[in-house]
Amino acid sequence: MSVTTPTTSSIFETRESAVRSYCRAFPTTFVKAVGSTMTDADGNEYIDFLAGCSSLNYGHNHPAMKEALIEHINSDGVTHGLDMHTDAKAEFLETFEKLILKPRGLNHRVMFTGPTGANAVEAALKLARKVTGRTGIISFTNGFHGMTLGALAVTGNQGKRDGAGVALSDVSHAPYDEYFGENVDTADQLDISLSDSSSGLDAPAAIVVETVQGEGGLNAASAEWLQKIEKIARKHGALFIVDDIQAGCGRTGAFFSFEDAGLKPDIITMAKSLSGMGLPFALTLIREDLDIWKPGEHNGTFRGNNHAFVTARKAFELFWSDDTLEKEVRAKSDYMKSRLSEIVASSRITKRVKGRGMMRGIEMTSGELASDICADCFDNGLIIETSGAQGEVVKILCALNIPQAQLEKGIDILSRAVAKIEANQSSRAAA
Amino acid sequence: MSVTTPTTSSIFETRESAVRSYCRAFPTTFVKAVGSTMTDADGNEYIDFLAGCSSLNYGHNHPAMKEALIEHINSDGVTHGLDMHTDAKAEFLETFEKLILKPRGLNHRVMFTGPTGANAVEAALKLARKVTGRTGIISFTNGFHGMTLGALAVTGNQGKRDGAGVALSDVSHAPYDEYFGENVDTADQLDISLSDSSSGLDAPAAIVVETVQGEGGLNAASAEWLQKIEKIARKHGALFIVDDIQAGCGRTGAFFSFEDAGLKPDIITMAKSLSGMGLPFALTLIREDLDIWKPGEHNGTFRGNNHAFVTARKAFELFWSDDTLEKEVRAKSDYMKSRLSEIVASSRITKRVKGRGMMRGIEMTSGELASDICADCFDNGLIIETSGAQGEVVKILCALNIPQAQLEKGIDILSRAVAKIEANQSSRAAA
Amino acid sequence: MSVTTPTTSSIFETRESAVRSYCRAFPTTFVKAVGSTMTDADGNEYIDFLAGCSSLNYGHNHPAMKEALIEHINSDGVTHGLDMHTDAKAEFLETFEKLILKPRGLNHRVMFTGPTGANAVEAALKLARKVTGRTGIISFTNGFHGMTLGALAVTGNQGKRDGAGVALSDVSHAPYDEYFGENVDTADQLDISLSDSSSGLDAPAAIVVETVQGEGGLNAASAEWLQKIEKIARKHGALFIVDDIQAGCGRTGAFFSFEDAGLKPDIITMAKSLSGMGLPFALTLIREDLDIWKPGEHNGTFRGNNHAFVTARKAFELFWSDDTLEKEVRAKSDYMKSRLSEIVASSRITKRVKGRGMMRGIEMTSGELASDICADCFDNGLIIETSGAQGEVVKILCALNIPQAQLEKGIDILSRAVAKIEANQSSRAAA
Amino acid sequence: MSVTTPTTSSIFETRESAVRSYCRAFPTTFVKAVGSTMTDADGNEYIDFLAGCSSLNYGHNHPAMKEALIEHINSDGVTHGLDMHTDAKAEFLETFEKLILKPRGLNHRVMFTGPTGANAVEAALKLARKVTGRTGIISFTNGFHGMTLGALAVTGNQGKRDGAGVALSDVSHAPYDEYFGENVDTADQLDISLSDSSSGLDAPAAIVVETVQGEGGLNAASAEWLQKIEKIARKHGALFIVDDIQAGCGRTGAFFSFEDAGLKPDIITMAKSLSGMGLPFALTLIREDLDIWKPGEHNGTFRGNNHAFVTARKAFELFWSDDTLEKEVRAKSDYMKSRLSEIVASSRITKRVKGRGMMRGIEMTSGELASDICADCFDNGLIIETSGAQGEVVKILCALNIPQAQLEKGIDILSRAVAKIEANQSSRAAA
Repeated sequence: MSVTTPTTSSIFETRESAVRSYCRAFPTTFVKAVGSTMTDADGNEYIDFLAGCSSLNYGHNHPAMKEALIEHINSDGVTHGLDMHTDAKAEFLETFEKLILKPRGLNHRVMFTGPTGANAVEAALKLARKVTGRTGIISFTNGFHGMTLGALAVTGNQGKRDGAGVALSDVSHAPYDEYFGENVDTADQLDISLSDSSSGLDAPAAIVVETVQGEGGLNAASAEWLQKIEKIARKHGALFIVDDIQAGCGRTGAFFSFEDAGLKPDIITMAKSLSGMGLPFALTLIREDLDIWKPGEHNGTFRGNNHAFVTARKAFELFWSDDTLEKEVRAKSDYMKSRLSEIVASSRITKRVKGRGMMRGIEMTSGELASDICADCFDNGLIIETSGAQGEVVKILCALNIPQAQLEKGIDILSRAVAKIEANQSSRAAA
Repeated sequence: MSVTTPTTSSIFETRESAVRSYCRAFPTTFVKAVGSTMTDADGNEYIDFLAGCSSLNYGHNHPAMKEALIEHINSDGVTHGLDMHTDAKAEFLETFEKLILKPRGLNHRVMFTGPTGANAVEAALKLARKVTGRTGIISFTNGFHGMTLGALAVTGNQGKRDGAGVALSDVSHAPYDEYFGENVDTADQLDISLSDSSSGLDAPAAIVVETVQGEGGLNAASAEWLQKIEKIARKHGALFIVDDIQAGCGRTGAFFSFEDAGLKPDIITMAKSLSGMGLPFALTLIREDLDIWKPGEHNGTFRGNNHAFVTARKAFELFWSDDTLEKEVRAKSDYMKSRLSEIVASSRITKRVKGRGMMRGIEMTSGELASDICADCFDNGLIIETSGAQGEVVKILCALNIPQAQLEKGIDILSRAVAKIEANQSSRAAA
Repeated sequence: MSVTTPTTSSIFETRESAVRSYCRAFPTTFVKAVGSTMTDADGNEYIDFLAGCSSLNYGHNHPAMKEALIEHINSDGVTHGLDMHTDAKAEFLETFEKLILKPRGLNHRVMFTGPTGANAVEAALKLARKVTGRTGIISFTNGFHGMTLGALAVTGNQGKRDGAGVALSDVSHAPYDEYFGENVDTADQLDISLSDSSSGLDAPAAIVVETVQGEGGLNAASAEWLQKIEKIARKHGALFIVDDIQAGCGRTGAFFSFEDAGLKPDIITMAKSLSGMGLPFALTLIREDLDIWKPGEHNGTFRGNNHAFVTARKAFELFWSDDTLEKEVRAKSDYMKSRLSEIVASSRITKRVKGRGMMRGIEMTSGELASDICADCFDNGLIIETSGAQGEVVKILCALNIPQAQLEKGIDILSRAVAKIEANQSSRAAA
Repeated sequence: MSVTTPTTSSIFETRESAVRSYCRAFPTTFVKAVGSTMTDADGNEYIDFLAGCSSLNYGHNHPAMKEALIEHINSDGVTHGLDMHTDAKAEFLETFEKLILKPRGLNHRVMFTGPTGANAVEAALKLARKVTGRTGIISFTNGFHGMTLGALAVTGNQGKRDGAGVALSDVSHAPYDEYFGENVDTADQLDISLSDSSSGLDAPAAIVVETVQGEGGLNAASAEWLQKIEKIARKHGALFIVDDIQAGCGRTGAFFSFEDAGLKPDIITMAKSLSGMGLPFALTLIREDLDIWKPGEHNGTFRGNNHAFVTARKAFELFWSDDTLEKEVRAKSDYMKSRLSEIVASSRITKRVKGRGMMRGIEMTSGELASDICADCFDNGLIIETSGAQGEVVKILCALNIPQAQLEKGIDILSRAVAKIEANQSSRAAA
């Protein structure tokens, strides 16, 4: 397959800001996307192992969601509703309550924030500070929570943090599970610091954690560690916030990524795959008794994106009325783990399989190699990206409902790319 | 007309967060919206003088935009594209360049931020700090720029600021035009402070201003004052940022609200009506030579909302290929000013007409009266809201293309409401 | 008189930090100081118009203070006492109460802070924040309050502020009296901003003000303005703090500089001349009901400088048992004003007389000229310095009890220097 | 011995701020102090095991220092000199260079800061930020560095931190040596975090450490750990600052507490015993090439306390011309350790001996017991205090030159107090 430079690329180079990034790794112009297949202007097809960074858990343009959305548009349903009541919003809430919250015993109130994950995180942090009257937040090494100032402060990545241009204060970054290796219990260390009134670690308003760190390199915390962190938060009067923006919506099997560990977060942030179809949509879920917001104390123009309400409701009905998808994810997760383990076993430029559920990846020995592998994959029709502090993890974030054949084909391309890059490196080293 | 409580209201009360606000003033459930008319579940019709807080400048569900969007969906065009190149994005950029930027002599680069105004503001502030190596920002009294921590810091409203829970630092709030009355030139005062190395006002990275303060009470700065502020920014090495999120997209006549004053902002933030149809979409426009971002230094999952690209392009083609809309806005602006002036002239509970273009309102003698008036309007089929520090300004933010008859009818309802509330108050005072 | 380079200067150049400053303007080594006369290693005598920046209001080495101090040392009185009770401390408190606080109707509690003015200011700001539960402080343009991070934040000078290296937050700098000229009432403007819940100026914990800005250029606020500021603080629930470190201890006539305006500050900071003899000593005076400190919540190793207690007590007895000194200061103040007015009237390189009481100076047309004048004065046996943002004010801060003949002689030297520098400039301009 | 309530106590209760603290534990009024003996108004004598919190390393009122000071005063030597050159300052610098700096191979420049330890720390942090262009500082759990805002931010104690009333930002508190027990190398952990660009721990301007944490509970870091921390600072481009305010001036044997570990700090802060006699005096020592201050960029009224220059010089001459004192300290240190170990071995309410050199103490099983022991000691003529997060460590900070007999007698009192309190507790438990 040969990828030609699309004719429309120039407008991006001449007019789009230099901040653009993914397009640099995938230098073509996409015109069509269905399920796990993207098609560019030259008719080339690509398997999508990126899925909008986990925003397209049900694939591109699911026909039933499309149909529901078009019907809504055709009937002049409300498109933009601020936070006014609409039928689409009511139906979303009713379905969310019925299929997601109630079966999981969650009494959380639903806060419609601005439709970005960062906004949901900002709202969560504000509320935690309001509820506790404290200012500090504890987040974790390699955590990623967004790019607005409040969300950026809880994010670990230096390159992103440097963009702030001002001090990112009121946050302490504690070591994540196994950050100092298997033998150091970082949860216990956190408890020691919080229990010591002279540690300099002030009592926090909240502890915010991802159960699997998507951007941070597919670090998956153990259930035990997560349970300890939840207990530590409670013990020290802090709210326990799970940022489930990337790992939620079934990515790890259950709808929420924290279900397997039996956690009951005080606040949950959601976005990415929430709308089902990739439309901007975010929520902050708040334990009922903590919902002490004053009307309008946090708001946002696009918090009533009714198109997203329609597709989100449809997604719940399609995928969360029973456990079919969950089982499928768990099966595919095993498959992915197995295939990736084989690659790791047979390659010297790989270190280990990382992640949980259908957030899986291979840690390479360097970010440069990982980048080379992704580039080779793209040349062979696979869209795949890296994560981690040095971009050293090649990650698979394909749609949960990707056909098995496509999943296998994609991993085949990846496997060949690893072998090829390894061979290239060996020959270079020999030269 | 009698408004009945919609049957679906209970889900909002039991499940939506207490932070909800507009729905409290408009207690019904909307099911349909076309042009400037919204319809609720009981079939009641309302004239929309709120227009998504200026997010629906071309009205609800414009048929041509609907058509373009449905066509895109039907053809499986990319919905969610991160920041990858797509045909929809290319066409948006080309059209934006051709119809908006080039005719106005703007060489600005287009930064696709997360699809909220707050995100565009956060990106603007980050870049200003990066470009100048300075940290301070000057914003203005009664300014509103968003609810995430960075954007909230430049916002004046105490109720919103209190929600932060932490210090909002690195910002000074200077007095807006005529803040201390007509006889005090607040621009000159700002220049004095910035010119004095002992004023305690550190040299700022940027001055960020709205030409008309929508949320702040429809305060409209004079062209002279704005020109001075731009010069002061340049003189002191600060970037000049116009936040055109609410006043842009034709709201004041020209596409950008600063065109009449002949300004050339270094950075421009846009959102609200940018997509044309109310879909989440925001941009930060950056003077070409200031676009020093590193790839991915600011990013966001939903920065590639292709549905919005499609409708935005269509909106440009429909409304900005010639000056028809601009002329219409200027004519309606005059009409609104004239009608509102009549109301003010004949009422003792009003103070003055405020605003510019089709951001017009009446300052009442109290926020309570303004609120009563809006409630009465709603009972009579008009959706209208207040703004200002005390909610003391009844504001009209109707669609720019509202039919003249509807505009007149809406103002009639408003006029009667003012009279009625005034009469009520008089009788209460007499009692 | 010829000043030779002292033989010991080299150790300063080779070993003292480059941060040293005054010694650069007065390049000699002093070995003796009595009253208002300093003597250097070569036997040259200088009239001291700097007086330790108002730390030596009663002159150098007052014989009675020396005697009391030597007696204390000889009898092995406690030198360093942390904050333990000592006889010297008790006698200081009793005398301070009897001669200073009670006659002025002040019920303030005495807080012994670390013995620097900055420390007294830091303690005052902490307490104001603790009492009010608020974080913001309002200070004024050209204010100077110290160099530690909290005190620096309320200081206006850019050169000093730049040294912080971090954001100086939680402070707003309001314009001082007549900052925008005689016709703008900056107190009224402050009230408007604080009364507006959308001004962005959050309700402050305290307003901190100097009645005369010593470092800021001898700006003297009017009694009316100060009274307004006090009322504004009360109206908005903020504490009213007078920083009387430089202007207190009789410098303006009364013991406290705010007595003439009839103010009753909630908190008063003192240092500089408090010990009478120039020993490190500072206090924060706290209105009785506001003294809600927990034991040790603010402390410091040297808060029990018993030598200073001894000399301070002696100074009160010598100078504040009756109104002799106060009358003398008022008379000299008039004399200084009159003489300086003559200089201003006869010179084109001067602008105006500034200051109040025995904080008097001449604003020159540039800082460079002011510096040249001081240098010439030093060559002629007068130690005198500048203040103001550009160092444009030549200031006289001589001892309050300077003999009239010495005062006259010093002003004569100054007068000749002004004439000489003006002549030099004219001849240079003519060349 | 019976301690009567001193007649002068009332003035402290009625007039001194509630912030007073030590005087509550030692409720008498001291009138005389010589060597290690303090005498109160009733003639009671006390052995001083507090020594001004290590500010009186050579005891109270050393006769030779007294003599030098009185001679200076009698000859009208400069008392207060701002930062002007004086003979006393020159002699101090020459002696400091000759006896302290040169023999230790230190080329550091001497910065005369305001005369408090906090001020020296503030100057150090400012300079580190200026040199590196970074903002963050790493300090350690249980560290204590002062009470002004910048110094408080690097301090661990929650009770002190709470007094700030604002966010204490730009600081991370890393775990001190053995903070997580003997088996966790906290230096290695710090290196891991700093080496990880996604840890959220931004590259710091400086690492600031005490070799023994006096206020934090007499935690003594090992030489190996300190050496690692120094290397880590260098590796990551941060300055290495040793705060030697409490542990310096011979307290651990060598003049600087870091000499035994062979460290070469970039910046050293000094105060407390620097003047030799307990007079306010502080210094910041700066590696020659890092002395990039602009003149006056950090200053302070009392940075020229000439009385302290005189006594400090005398102290150097008396105690640091040879190694007599150092040997004496090491011998007494062994003696103290041995005696305290005996107490610990024979008591169930003690946990372990802590500290290094003549900073020695016993960790009790609770702060309450430690407090009871100190109270009993005071009743029996011994002034002794606690430290640590819960005040759980009874600490001995006696003068270095305390006569051996007095040291023994003091420890005897302490030993009996431990036994008595233990017995009391046992009888209470039995009751």
